[in-house]
Amino acid sequence: MQVFSTVGDFRAARAGLGALGFVPTMGFLHEGHLGLVRRAKAENGAVAVSIFVNPTQFGPNEDYASYPRNPEHDLALLKEAGADLVFLPTPDVLYPPGFVTRIEVGGVADEMEGRSRPGHFSGVATVVTKLFNIVQPQRAYFGQKDAQQCAVVKRFVADLNIPVDIVVCEIAREDDGLARSSRNVRLTPEGRQRAPGLFRALQAAERLFATGERRADRLEEAMQAVLTDAGLTEIDYATVVDPATFRRPERLGEEALALLAVQVGAVRLIDNQPLDGRVAPVA
Amino acid sequence: MQVFSTVGDFRAARAGLGALGFVPTMGFLHEGHLGLVRRAKAENGAVAVSIFVNPTQFGPNEDYASYPRNPEHDLALLKEAGADLVFLPTPDVLYPPGFVTRIEVGGVADEMEGRSRPGHFSGVATVVTKLFNIVQPQRAYFGQKDAQQCAVVKRFVADLNIPVDIVVCEIAREDDGLARSSRNVRLTPEGRQRAPGLFRALQAAERLFATGERRADRLEEAMQAVLTDAGLTEIDYATVVDPATFRRPERLGEEALALLAVQVGAVRLIDNQPLDGRVAPVA
Repeated sequence: MQVFSTVGDFRAARAGLGALGFVPTMGFLHEGHLGLVRRAKAENGAVAVSIFVNPTQFGPNEDYASYPRNPEHDLALLKEAGADLVFLPTPDVLYPPGFVTRIEVGGVADEMEGRSRPGHFSGVATVVTKLFNIVQPQRAYFGQKDAQQCAVVKRFVADLNIPVDIVVCEIAREDDGLARSSRNVRLTPEGRQRAPGLFRALQAAERLFATGERRADRLEEAMQAVLTDAGLTEIDYATVVDPATFRRPERLGEEALALLAVQVGAVRLIDNQPLDGRVAPVA
Repeated sequence: MQVFSTVGDFRAARAGLGALGFVPTMGFLHEGHLGLVRRAKAENGAVAVSIFVNPTQFGPNEDYASYPRNPEHDLALLKEAGADLVFLPTPDVLYPPGFVTRIEVGGVADEMEGRSRPGHFSGVATVVTKLFNIVQPQRAYFGQKDAQQCAVVKRFVADLNIPVDIVVCEIAREDDGLARSSRNVRLTPEGRQRAPGLFRALQAAERLFATGERRADRLEEAMQAVLTDAGLTEIDYATVVDPATFRRPERLGEEALALLAVQVGAVRLIDNQPLDGRVAPVA
């Protein structure tokens, strides 16, 4: 496994490889990331991983400074998972003096997280485009945990004709259902106990949807009740949307997406569950 | 020479070629474009040309509808000039329903043409990025006539790490100095007679700069006087800027750029001249 911190060095190494799978990450890797790396390796023969906590996708009052970091441990995990190339730049490598370009995505990027975190998806779109241009992968792997990010990436990749296939992989969860996230480490013991309430709320929506319920407000009420029971009261949103648009209709179709964002102490957690009328077996 | 109108067909043909030079155009080709094609062919072995009048870089009151078009004649010229691949899409191919992404460039894109034509450079940056992703050239060729466009393209290509070398080629002029432009054909006979005044104004600035004059207002006055003499009074701007920033300082350095935009009847013409203290021999 080779590790590079400059664009030129990375490109020189990349030029020697053929088709490449790519996993962009913000580091502090967990089983979710490692699953993406293993799948990318299996499907492409070689895999590149980037580790970069991208400042431009954090709002001024968000957790850029406190976002957990541990690059040495990440590199050990990546070596074990079979990564071939790692790109680990500093912010000045990707945003040198004079940098003035940004990618703006409308539509799906304007909803939910887009409303809660102005500028977030523009920061994501810009850095992902840069990384795609540096890494030049055939396929890139993203986790369903960031469902709306996946939809935004697919949108601008199609709109800008970027020649990369986007592969979305299932959410990795802890035994109690909590979605794996680098931010989980910042939960207090008490917050960690409450946090699986997010998954239970999604399960409640899934069960109700499977009974035929299509009224958005009823599904939201079911999630709300579970969250309240779990002591999760700082709810940014807990709703159901059309997965094609991330808009909330009064009445859902046969495919929907339950998704929520909840503040648990100092940590904002998101999670989601595709709804198709079936109930997934409990993990 | 092969001609394609869809992304998939173009890509299939492109995949069979190695390194490629690329000349993006809006068609109605003249000697300026053909010079770019010949140079791209010589420097890369194979050359792709796009013909697309991009609606998103025209303002609502600009000349998108009346911009001259003649694709059949263009194709004959391109065949003669040695083009290998031509991409000739319709607007719905590049902007299908649901398209919501745009690239915004700051800095150099905010000055001069950026102020006169809001949204213009965003339209340019977005379509050029799309075309680069479709064509995947090693080098792309642009004319110095659109000096600020060249600076904007270099800016976002660097900012987004797009792996394409940008080559800027000299302005092709008519015998009387008028810069070649597809829009020239829309000049009335009377406007065509006045139009070389743009070049003469730039020459006046060049001569004055060569005498050591570095005060921006004096250089502007010299251009203004020539334009007025030529009966060119609808001046959008006739100024001198720092070529790195396209900002107008009070006093210029050792390198500057004289540039102007003038309305000649129904046609808006632009032209420019790099100033380095030497006076170019008259064409």
